[in-house]
Amino acid sequence: MTCVLSGKPVFKTQIQNSFVPASRLVDSDLNPNALNAKYAVRGRIPIRAEELRAQLAQDPSSVPFDKIINANIGNPQQLDQKPLTFYRQVLSLLEYPELMDNKAVVDTFPKDLVERAKKMLESIGSVGAYSHSQGVPYLRESVANFISKRDGYKSSPDDIFLTAGASSAVSYLLNLLSLGPQTGFLIPIPQYPLYTASLALNNSTALPYFLNESDDWSIDASSIAKIVQDAKAQGVEARCLVLINPGNPTGAILKPETIADLLAVAAEHGLVVIADEVYQENVFKGEFVSVKKVLSQLKELDRSGKFDKVQLASLHSTSKGVSGECGQRGGYMELVGFEESVRAQLLKLASISLCPPVAGQALVELMINPPTEGQESYELYKKETQAISDALRERSSKLYEAFNTMEGVSCQQPEGAMYLFPSLTLSEKVYAEAAKLGMEPDEYYCAQLLENTGICTVPGSGFGQVEGTWHIRTTFLAPGTAWIEDWKTFHEKFVKQHK
Amino acid sequence: MTCVLSGKPVFKTQIQNSFVPASRLVDSDLNPNALNAKYAVRGRIPIRAEELRAQLAQDPSSVPFDKIINANIGNPQQLDQKPLTFYRQVLSLLEYPELMDNKAVVDTFPKDLVERAKKMLESIGSVGAYSHSQGVPYLRESVANFISKRDGYKSSPDDIFLTAGASSAVSYLLNLLSLGPQTGFLIPIPQYPLYTASLALNNSTALPYFLNESDDWSIDASSIAKIVQDAKAQGVEARCLVLINPGNPTGAILKPETIADLLAVAAEHGLVVIADEVYQENVFKGEFVSVKKVLSQLKELDRSGKFDKVQLASLHSTSKGVSGECGQRGGYMELVGFEESVRAQLLKLASISLCPPVAGQALVELMINPPTEGQESYELYKKETQAISDALRERSSKLYEAFNTMEGVSCQQPEGAMYLFPSLTLSEKVYAEAAKLGMEPDEYYCAQLLENTGICTVPGSGFGQVEGTWHIRTTFLAPGTAWIEDWKTFHEKFVKQHK
Repeated sequence: MTCVLSGKPVFKTQIQNSFVPASRLVDSDLNPNALNAKYAVRGRIPIRAEELRAQLAQDPSSVPFDKIINANIGNPQQLDQKPLTFYRQVLSLLEYPELMDNKAVVDTFPKDLVERAKKMLESIGSVGAYSHSQGVPYLRESVANFISKRDGYKSSPDDIFLTAGASSAVSYLLNLLSLGPQTGFLIPIPQYPLYTASLALNNSTALPYFLNESDDWSIDASSIAKIVQDAKAQGVEARCLVLINPGNPTGAILKPETIADLLAVAAEHGLVVIADEVYQENVFKGEFVSVKKVLSQLKELDRSGKFDKVQLASLHSTSKGVSGECGQRGGYMELVGFEESVRAQLLKLASISLCPPVAGQALVELMINPPTEGQESYELYKKETQAISDALRERSSKLYEAFNTMEGVSCQQPEGAMYLFPSLTLSEKVYAEAAKLGMEPDEYYCAQLLENTGICTVPGSGFGQVEGTWHIRTTFLAPGTAWIEDWKTFHEKFVKQHK
Repeated sequence: MTCVLSGKPVFKTQIQNSFVPASRLVDSDLNPNALNAKYAVRGRIPIRAEELRAQLAQDPSSVPFDKIINANIGNPQQLDQKPLTFYRQVLSLLEYPELMDNKAVVDTFPKDLVERAKKMLESIGSVGAYSHSQGVPYLRESVANFISKRDGYKSSPDDIFLTAGASSAVSYLLNLLSLGPQTGFLIPIPQYPLYTASLALNNSTALPYFLNESDDWSIDASSIAKIVQDAKAQGVEARCLVLINPGNPTGAILKPETIADLLAVAAEHGLVVIADEVYQENVFKGEFVSVKKVLSQLKELDRSGKFDKVQLASLHSTSKGVSGECGQRGGYMELVGFEESVRAQLLKLASISLCPPVAGQALVELMINPPTEGQESYELYKKETQAISDALRERSSKLYEAFNTMEGVSCQQPEGAMYLFPSLTLSEKVYAEAAKLGMEPDEYYCAQLLENTGICTVPGSGFGQVEGTWHIRTTFLAPGTAWIEDWKTFHEKFVKQHK
């Protein structure tokens, strides 16, 4: 055919144009593993929140609130958290190094900071160049030094992978370790839904282990051993144990002895341990001890070498802590105890996406190696981070206290992370109303909360929970207390209406 | 057991410590799909180049060259390309908006640029916040406007996904469309190995179609139709046609009539078209016409609606063009003709990685919406981009001419992209030497080139080639001409030694 557009021939094609067109793809044509993946943090409730936000902008009087409060996701800078000046000054210099030649800029920036940016640039080159797929060697070295200092046990830059947030580390690990439904991954319930989503994508089996809500969401290692045995009896080989510490969505912190017990189970059953430790800086009560540290202690204590073959991947991120730099997509993974060939396979997977964002890599280094006392940049850094820590601690307490005044709500005391995960006692009427709408009862509660107050949360069913119990996950990042009061008022009305 | 370290009890564990430890995972325990994925751009030759770089740093006299030239990857800023001032000034303001309050900065930055950064920040909020998983709405709108203007056909922001480079778009698409070995993806040979790597990860079938080297690496649409039929006879359903235009590694540009022919095949057989158009700005000869534009023209011309159901995903990136901002991981995907539910599945996949780097998203907007004449930032922008274009054009010609003086080397004239892909005639002796080392003959050539000159390239076997032909892919990004002279000298010697 010859194509003619507005009188002028556009091109001449070779093929006869007399075919019958095929139809479009529909869901049933797609990868069932992808279809099965669910990610509640950005699921039905948050999508409805976006619709309401648009409606609010168009017609403020059409909804009974004046803003959407995104308590569904740990995204501090979307709410009122300001980025740390130290991070952003360095990043501005990395993006536009010529600022270092501008006296007015250099005079207003701390000297140590400018020196540091210079030194980083020497090793990075340009943040616009692809780096090594495992990350810039100099930055990896700094991460290894941080871990060595944090734990008191040596870490090597060869074992550090800089990643685009912790999510891409999870994606590489779960992909490499999955051989289909016969491979099982022990995941906590409740869990961060990234894990079930990634397992669905890889068509592997989730082996849920329940956290004990009444005992600060703790883990019983012997129950893990039992799950491994039971899975084996059903033809599923447990090959990975996911620990989230501090917990998401629970906010609980694991005790070192619990970690040691879990490592013994991992050592005996050859489980790869994925330690999701992205909330390690968000600690309000107790102490964070890394899985790497406990593993190193066990290796030192047990001279028989029982713990030498434990394979551990621990993850960290710039998105949480007091950084809250979610949009920069920075993170790292440390590998311990893996065969060299397995490490090489992970590097190959990373290389297929070329490299993690280079500015995000630099941010990881800034996060784990902050200014120290005596440096010009220290005072402001300390003031800002302290203020964020204090605000998070205060908000978590206030919200916790509010929950404990609400009828039928109970909540564990927050220890860490950015979330509370209160339990809700819901009435028969709630069950019935939810069923009418094809919702879980806790999803119905979240939907009602959203429609009435603009507060967007995630139902416990998105994270998993003991059957017959209902929860809700909320961050405590939103500023002020007015929204907490709104929630209380809503709750009272909700309970009354559903008696 | 009770754990005691340096005399002080560390923790008490509940579990008896009398187990036999399990062994570590080895390759045979891993996902065979992941093991099968190969990615030559960061494969054996580049890994050896890194070893040589370290050796060079330690003992310069141990190698016969004074630097490694990374001609294996399109990574302009790793070589001598400077980032564009316009991009980086805006990014520095987005990273540290307080710079806008610094008179000395604002006075040295073009006014339109500061205004633009301000406006972007209003819609982005902070580059440290997670954005919508599909990308910041305002930035998507700008991308849609760019496409509408480029093609003369409307694009909608709802169809734009901002992505971490083009690679993550490929990853989502191939994952969603793969149902296992019975799903076939038509990929050009030679191809960019991201495609075969991603297909291996998804255990789907590559259906190679050969580009015609003697006809400027063109595509014969009727050969595609035949491959679809043959695949069907063997139980493989072709469901996707990958077009790389301008070509990687070939550097060739598709003619609109060829694209129209290919779209007719896609329409008839229900093939999703993935148009990898990341080199659309790297054009030396001829003209780039997008697949979207040709499809829109066909739809307008053929009132029977034959082309209405064609599903197209076209990809762009900030890594190439004159931007060369590889490390920032910016890109976009435009979807055309997909069912809404399929689009929703892609959004879900994107949401599992939360969001693309936000600074990278902003960079996409800067790239597709550059300063315009009359704006203060225009002159410098124009000067810098022109200089980069000119340098690339000049280097491509010089390298092309050099190849055509080398014995047994022939090369198509460069039209676009960042690569040349000359064909090598290799002797029996080369075959024999390569076989001794367990290498392909072209890999052996690349290895020898690297060991003797420090020039790192990728063998054609990493991209695919007609059996019995041998090629090498090289970028023409490295500055100067000394390395080209070194290559010529090496080649002469190599031919002599392998006669």
